[in-house]
Amino acid sequence: MLIPLFALLLAAQSSPALPTPVPAAAPAAPVLPSDAIEADWRAIPDDELLVMTLANGRTVVVRLAARFAPEHVANVRTLARAGWWNGESVYRVQENWVAQWGDPSEKKPMAAGVKDVPAAEFEIAKSLVAQGPTQLLAQRMARPDSYSTLSGFTADGWPVAGDGKATWLTHCYGAVGVARDALPSTGSGSELFTPIGQSARRLDRNYTVVGRIIEGMSYLSALPRSDAAMGFYATPGERTGIVSVRLASDIPAAERPTFQYRATDNPRFAAYVRLREVAAPPTVPTGASVCDVPLAVRRVAK
Amino acid sequence: MLIPLFALLLAAQSSPALPTPVPAAAPAAPVLPSDAIEADWRAIPDDELLVMTLANGRTVVVRLAARFAPEHVANVRTLARAGWWNGESVYRVQENWVAQWGDPSEKKPMAAGVKDVPAAEFEIAKSLVAQGPTQLLAQRMARPDSYSTLSGFTADGWPVAGDGKATWLTHCYGAVGVARDALPSTGSGSELFTPIGQSARRLDRNYTVVGRIIEGMSYLSALPRSDAAMGFYATPGERTGIVSVRLASDIPAAERPTFQYRATDNPRFAAYVRLREVAAPPTVPTGASVCDVPLAVRRVAK
Repeated sequence: MLIPLFALLLAAQSSPALPTPVPAAAPAAPVLPSDAIEADWRAIPDDELLVMTLANGRTVVVRLAARFAPEHVANVRTLARAGWWNGESVYRVQENWVAQWGDPSEKKPMAAGVKDVPAAEFEIAKSLVAQGPTQLLAQRMARPDSYSTLSGFTADGWPVAGDGKATWLTHCYGAVGVARDALPSTGSGSELFTPIGQSARRLDRNYTVVGRIIEGMSYLSALPRSDAAMGFYATPGERTGIVSVRLASDIPAAERPTFQYRATDNPRFAAYVRLREVAAPPTVPTGASVCDVPLAVRRVAK
Repeated sequence: MLIPLFALLLAAQSSPALPTPVPAAAPAAPVLPSDAIEADWRAIPDDELLVMTLANGRTVVVRLAARFAPEHVANVRTLARAGWWNGESVYRVQENWVAQWGDPSEKKPMAAGVKDVPAAEFEIAKSLVAQGPTQLLAQRMARPDSYSTLSGFTADGWPVAGDGKATWLTHCYGAVGVARDALPSTGSGSELFTPIGQSARRLDRNYTVVGRIIEGMSYLSALPRSDAAMGFYATPGERTGIVSVRLASDIPAAERPTFQYRATDNPRFAAYVRLREVAAPPTVPTGASVCDVPLAVRRVAK
């Protein structure tokens, strides 16, 4: 089968391998140095999970960056608890750029308790940066990239970049950013977007990253593009309706999804990053950016 | 309207600006140093345009990299002239990775004259590299990236990267790559793919870039993803049929599309690249990669 073989070799954790015939007594798959062990999986708190149910029956799950964008996450939680997004829509899908959702009219009154102009959270607070590289750059990418002199991962699985003076969450594919008007607006968090194209790193340090999509990304990335200005759908009928956006902690226990993330502060994740950066011969090693490393999560039974 | 404002500021050439009220006597739009002038637009030869008509009525147009992958482009032309793809399909769409088309059975006999194993064209031939930076790196990106120590654009509008020893076409979003089996296979060119996600630069130097999509990319990038292994659709019904793939030069003149590309070997394109790399305050400059710079083309009347 003719495929970009790299996908097989390097994306094993993010995409299933090709089916192969299984012999009667199949040997156990070997454990690789880059494989996670059970202790690497850590719980995502239920109030850091945002569950968006679309009118087409699809579900998108966002992990909230509660530590890094506390004011915006507080707003998002308030909006979710008020049912503010229920009945709203994904109203903008621009090719090779973003999908965006919320209230396209911008006239819906904010939920009580939402800060209209939260503090700018474009960069990571100095108090968190002071925790040092063990927390903020638990793993580093080998090389600088076009957008930063250093990049890597927080211990709890967030992609970050920095220039030695500031550190920030990166707008990788699937990041959830806060749309906003011109400064001093920082965006309330009611209008959210996710990059669906090649790169949105040029939004780094200029928009607040409030989370990342950990399940159902394709239900946004494969939506029809709009040719209208900026990818805003020209007619309401093109929009994808939102039935509800809820915090997992507000969903009845019986139907509440539970997730774990793969921690990065261990030699297994380090080996995984190196595998992305340097492939084995005959593959020519090409390097990798911080956005090229899949950050694994898994659904778990309660 | 709440939007990632960068899109407005930086992507003006690739996406329409927001509609604004037009006063009765509208002043002419100012000419910016980064705007192309008429002389910057150059013809793409008709036999370097591949026109794929899908069963849903959509059309995808590929510019062929005839100079850089001559053996694979020769195969592609032979296949197109034989009508080899007519009735085949887009049979693989893997989330955040690639869309791929051709013959999923891999059993269709090759067209007469197609080389089964063309020369590897993963890198740009030394004879072309010898033409020097005026041709190959007519514009350079300011910084190295995760995948190369230097990158930029050929004079005729192709994104390239290098490490001082080799130079290669980059697998940016919308590049057209040649799927292949394990080496020594180089792929005949019958099975083609395009990156639809964040980055496929890790395919650089390991796959042949045979072209790039210059129109209709969203008709591939917005196709439903397959959850089956490697994104190959599990059932034929999920595939998107291909009515025909033709060279523009083989299409009757009356319906033949004609395109021009924006040349890069001029100060206007240089200013355009700098605009991507360094935005004006209050925007925090973030840098840009070679894949972040839109390479403009336009349809022209014959």
